[in-house]
Amino acid sequence: MDSPVHRVSLGDTWSRRVHPDMASERFIQSFSVEQLTNILDGGAQNTALRRKVESIIHSDPEFSVKDNYFMTQNERYVAAIQKRFHFQIIAKRLGWLENSPEFYYAYRYSLPGQPQRYQGPCLWWATPAPCPFPHRALSGELALGLHTVFLKSLQSLGSEEQIAKWTPLCNEFRIIASYAQTELGHGTNLRGLETEATYDAATQEFVVHSPTLTATKWWPGDMGRSATHTLVQAQLICSGARQGMHAFIVPIRSLQDHTPLPGVTVGDIGPKMDFDNIDHGFLRLDHVRIPRENMLSRFAQVLPDGTYVKLGTQQTNYFSMVVVRVELLLGEIIPLLQKACVIAIRYSVIRRQSSIRPSDPEAKILDYQTQQQKLLPQLATAYAFHFLASNLLKFLHSSYDAIRNKDFSNLPELHALSAGIKAMTSDLCFQGSELCRRACGGHGYSKLSGLPSLVTRVTASCTYEGDNTVLYLQMARFLVKNYLQTQAIPGSTQKSLPPSVAYLTAPYLARCPAQKAADFLHPKLYTTAWAHVAARLIKDSAHHLETLIRSGADWAEAWNQTTVIHLQTAKAHCYYISVKSFTETLEKLENKPAVWQVLKRLCDLYALHGILTNAADFLHDGFLSGAQVDAVRTGYLELLGLVRKDAILLTDAFDFTDPSLNSALGCYDGNVYERLFHWAQKSPTNTQENPAYEKYLRPLLQSWKSRL
Amino acid sequence: MDSPVHRVSLGDTWSRRVHPDMASERFIQSFSVEQLTNILDGGAQNTALRRKVESIIHSDPEFSVKDNYFMTQNERYVAAIQKRFHFQIIAKRLGWLENSPEFYYAYRYSLPGQPQRYQGPCLWWATPAPCPFPHRALSGELALGLHTVFLKSLQSLGSEEQIAKWTPLCNEFRIIASYAQTELGHGTNLRGLETEATYDAATQEFVVHSPTLTATKWWPGDMGRSATHTLVQAQLICSGARQGMHAFIVPIRSLQDHTPLPGVTVGDIGPKMDFDNIDHGFLRLDHVRIPRENMLSRFAQVLPDGTYVKLGTQQTNYFSMVVVRVELLLGEIIPLLQKACVIAIRYSVIRRQSSIRPSDPEAKILDYQTQQQKLLPQLATAYAFHFLASNLLKFLHSSYDAIRNKDFSNLPELHALSAGIKAMTSDLCFQGSELCRRACGGHGYSKLSGLPSLVTRVTASCTYEGDNTVLYLQMARFLVKNYLQTQAIPGSTQKSLPPSVAYLTAPYLARCPAQKAADFLHPKLYTTAWAHVAARLIKDSAHHLETLIRSGADWAEAWNQTTVIHLQTAKAHCYYISVKSFTETLEKLENKPAVWQVLKRLCDLYALHGILTNAADFLHDGFLSGAQVDAVRTGYLELLGLVRKDAILLTDAFDFTDPSLNSALGCYDGNVYERLFHWAQKSPTNTQENPAYEKYLRPLLQSWKSRL
Repeated sequence: MDSPVHRVSLGDTWSRRVHPDMASERFIQSFSVEQLTNILDGGAQNTALRRKVESIIHSDPEFSVKDNYFMTQNERYVAAIQKRFHFQIIAKRLGWLENSPEFYYAYRYSLPGQPQRYQGPCLWWATPAPCPFPHRALSGELALGLHTVFLKSLQSLGSEEQIAKWTPLCNEFRIIASYAQTELGHGTNLRGLETEATYDAATQEFVVHSPTLTATKWWPGDMGRSATHTLVQAQLICSGARQGMHAFIVPIRSLQDHTPLPGVTVGDIGPKMDFDNIDHGFLRLDHVRIPRENMLSRFAQVLPDGTYVKLGTQQTNYFSMVVVRVELLLGEIIPLLQKACVIAIRYSVIRRQSSIRPSDPEAKILDYQTQQQKLLPQLATAYAFHFLASNLLKFLHSSYDAIRNKDFSNLPELHALSAGIKAMTSDLCFQGSELCRRACGGHGYSKLSGLPSLVTRVTASCTYEGDNTVLYLQMARFLVKNYLQTQAIPGSTQKSLPPSVAYLTAPYLARCPAQKAADFLHPKLYTTAWAHVAARLIKDSAHHLETLIRSGADWAEAWNQTTVIHLQTAKAHCYYISVKSFTETLEKLENKPAVWQVLKRLCDLYALHGILTNAADFLHDGFLSGAQVDAVRTGYLELLGLVRKDAILLTDAFDFTDPSLNSALGCYDGNVYERLFHWAQKSPTNTQENPAYEKYLRPLLQSWKSRL
Repeated sequence: MDSPVHRVSLGDTWSRRVHPDMASERFIQSFSVEQLTNILDGGAQNTALRRKVESIIHSDPEFSVKDNYFMTQNERYVAAIQKRFHFQIIAKRLGWLENSPEFYYAYRYSLPGQPQRYQGPCLWWATPAPCPFPHRALSGELALGLHTVFLKSLQSLGSEEQIAKWTPLCNEFRIIASYAQTELGHGTNLRGLETEATYDAATQEFVVHSPTLTATKWWPGDMGRSATHTLVQAQLICSGARQGMHAFIVPIRSLQDHTPLPGVTVGDIGPKMDFDNIDHGFLRLDHVRIPRENMLSRFAQVLPDGTYVKLGTQQTNYFSMVVVRVELLLGEIIPLLQKACVIAIRYSVIRRQSSIRPSDPEAKILDYQTQQQKLLPQLATAYAFHFLASNLLKFLHSSYDAIRNKDFSNLPELHALSAGIKAMTSDLCFQGSELCRRACGGHGYSKLSGLPSLVTRVTASCTYEGDNTVLYLQMARFLVKNYLQTQAIPGSTQKSLPPSVAYLTAPYLARCPAQKAADFLHPKLYTTAWAHVAARLIKDSAHHLETLIRSGADWAEAWNQTTVIHLQTAKAHCYYISVKSFTETLEKLENKPAVWQVLKRLCDLYALHGILTNAADFLHDGFLSGAQVDAVRTGYLELLGLVRKDAILLTDAFDFTDPSLNSALGCYDGNVYERLFHWAQKSPTNTQENPAYEKYLRPLLQSWKSRL
């Protein structure tokens, strides 16, 4: 496993050898990297299959993303369209069915990393086989992801007739479809969307209309320049009554020449921090008429005379939202942090700067305590989040059978967990990846490091699929509700509460018993400590809420006046959940002592780093004393030194290929400077003539001659 | 002052009226916005002059940066070159001398915001007049900033003869010069730079050479495509001995046709997170020969026979570094946060989302406590940092006379303060501006919001002019040294310490006397609280260092093992300095009660937000109890509500013009959605034909016909 062929890009002499400073990091292997990779993949057979698929993708030059950093927005868009169609051809040729693991791994590797607002279950959902835990990143370079979202929405919201009509049109690309929800003036609050679909019984049509500028659809992917149809979320108005949000299929561009249809104003929203490959669009509709059949009507329909008929509830859609978020964690957000860790840590054993003692040679920067403090807690977080999301996915799976049998009792907990965990992971993955980027100094600012694009993508995930503040507050409502329930029913036991909040009725521990640093390195001890803090904060926030209500505020006003406190509470609870999840994963690995040992250190590091970062919450009621916090810090600093020894092996275990990292700093062989130098030569600023020379520089430099 | 003409961009109907939701924010003015602007500018006459210069720049279409967001790296570069030359013409025509305030304001408005590694004093330094506090941002769109850096370095490091020879060549642009220090493999540790200049007595030349790939110069501005000459920092080798870093003028491109000279490999380092306008370059030198006279020789020279002669020390250069950092604070870093606050806060009174009570209309998002918690502490920080940097500048001025008289006693404190404050402000300005960006939801992700470019620029400032970790540790060494001095001389008084650390000998206060929220709203109380925490942490870090040394570690090893603790200490000290500086500014404004009142709230908010964010440091030794921290939080939440009322006026007071904000979300009139919609139309993705249609989309959409 020292240097798998699929990782090394040949072609230059320097790329044929591993840098000695990198090789020395892999010389002593305290655990089997391959074994850990298999654990992350959910089994050795998954690892093998993933590698097979990745090697097919990587060996195909049409999928290469090497020149991405040099492309304009227009070029990235064309490349993404081209890759998407090429992928269709490859998948067909190799017989990768849409629900096969091969399709899944390939799709994960290169699907757009954009917000996927699809309504149906995720891809693997339909497979009878257990889900392979997808810890591969989306490299995010295919276009037309929203075409799939349209299809999934159709399948979950459409009648059988509608599904039969539109599915083949999509599958054969006789139309290119998109999904239009967010508006210029409205995002999070769906009920506030302004677009209207008014039923006209005379013609049996809906008149779809943007009544204001702020009703303009804004941000839908693939809509700016590609889509011929889009699924518009609009306020249904029939027989004079408003019936809330419904979905309507609206043709927007001519199938003959791609020009906008009458009444349609459509275009691209322009430059963004990232996602140049996607044509996010805007759409204004001026009384556009569509047939009655174009309203998706599994759950509601409008009869020819304008009568509105409800046909069921959409609770399964609520569940789909949960599925999308969990998908996002494993498919996009967490791999971005993992990659950032791989790049920054590999670079930090090649980069040498100053010396620790004046007489020493320059030291690897990873040997500085401050560099370890920046990077190693992020590495621990990247592992913690992988196990957290995997466990959440298992919980999702185990709840699915019940949901299929119309038992929705797990749904509130699932919803709260998916909301809170999405908020926590995207927040901390952003902070962590920016920290990794900055830990690479000036080179981390170069796009060729691969880090800027990781950071600008992960920061988007703090906003899409629910703004993090809104999501944390959804978690907070769940916590307060459950806490108030324990108060209302004095005899309530742990069993009556959802498992994630069962600690609310656990015996109260006023002081932490640990004293020395070593005492803190016990999963049970720090899990209990986190439970204590979360429980105290939940009680505190419920108390503040009740106090305000008792003093005359109504519930809504009291809630708004305590949201800052609720946010803090939700964050502590999520951190508790993540620590607990890591410790539970550890318990299952006790039969693999070497891997257990290295993961145990990461788990300790994650928990203790969390305590130090949030020390005020532990000191507040005297649960920890100042001296105990100092002991935590001592333990934490010792862990940094221990994890540092295995740091490169731990990044290798993620098993990201060089092409998927697309980083001059982060390649497996450690040839950082050679790659940076060679890649820079390909920049258009070097391959194209200096556009300022003839026009500005030469006249200036030579004008003095005429003055002689 | 309601709607100054120079702020409103005419031309569209919607832009002729202020949005009613914005106008209502300015209806009641609890203080004079103009008075506050004058305070920020350092006097009404400075405000007037600045506005005059800005209006000249803004009314000149050649300086427009409107299309920046749509440009490629090549286009940005050409535009920056063009603007630079246009500026030369304008300045000459208007008679703006290089040291005039007009030149200064114009220069500040549009100079490149790139790292300026110049060695000489900043521009205003040479003026006998008091420095106008420069709180205008660099909009960063002129090229050839390094040409000026070269000139300054020449003036500070060159002999009179060299200055006389090269200055006119630069001034007449017969050469374009750059400054080359950082290498591919070396940045922070100057002594580690590998480029060599070996003296050859036979020909009386220096042979300038890059002995390794990592010795390649990397990052120098203007060098990638523009410069004909560059000032190379290299190891001087003469008569077989290494004499350390010296500066050499090296011609790199032909003055005839701009091609690289023999032995020179030069080019652009490629795409970065931002600064597309600057051609950051690389440079490899293969035994390039330059005449002996090209080594700058004010402080050292090489005689024809190869004898090395030292001519003095460079302590004034040490001082120059301090000046550059302070310049950077006021000229680049802090205005970036101020602008981010203006944009996000203005957007937050236009954006409406959900309702606080179910029956209410949708609320302005600034009325949500969570939005206030994101933005208003950043606004307070933006003010705090302005006063902090202004006070540091005053200290710099007052020290300058002494330094001119060879009294360098203030230099260690100045150096520590400039290092620590640069680190703190860039760290917190980055965090704050990213928070502002994200507080604008999806629209904050659009480049048209102006926020992405603010964030990607400010994050660069965490690295250039000294990596923040390195800078904090420089501050920490100063703190430990001073603390150990108080221990070594038991009778030492406050007077024997530099003023910024005088608190180390202040009487010890074990417990904070405040109880209720209102008790905490006293500048003296919270300044003392911050001093307490800083002093405790300094003692703690010195104690850890000494314990390790006593147990056998050498100083260097002990230092590396305690750097995490020292970092925390340096941060607390810097925060203390910033709180103290704000309170001192307040004291001087007691004769302006309305402005004093609103700034007092910001000062309270800044201090209390800091306490809450770092509550563990206050709880650690029981200085604050949990109940007292809760009281701080109560006070903090009340302040949010109070500052919210004045929020728009406080952003107006920064007096940024619409063109300098260049933001669709942040304009004075609040017409957010109209501007976003109209600006998007200009994107090349809308003005150019769809490059994927003919090649990919049309064949696909119409291929089914052939299958019929």
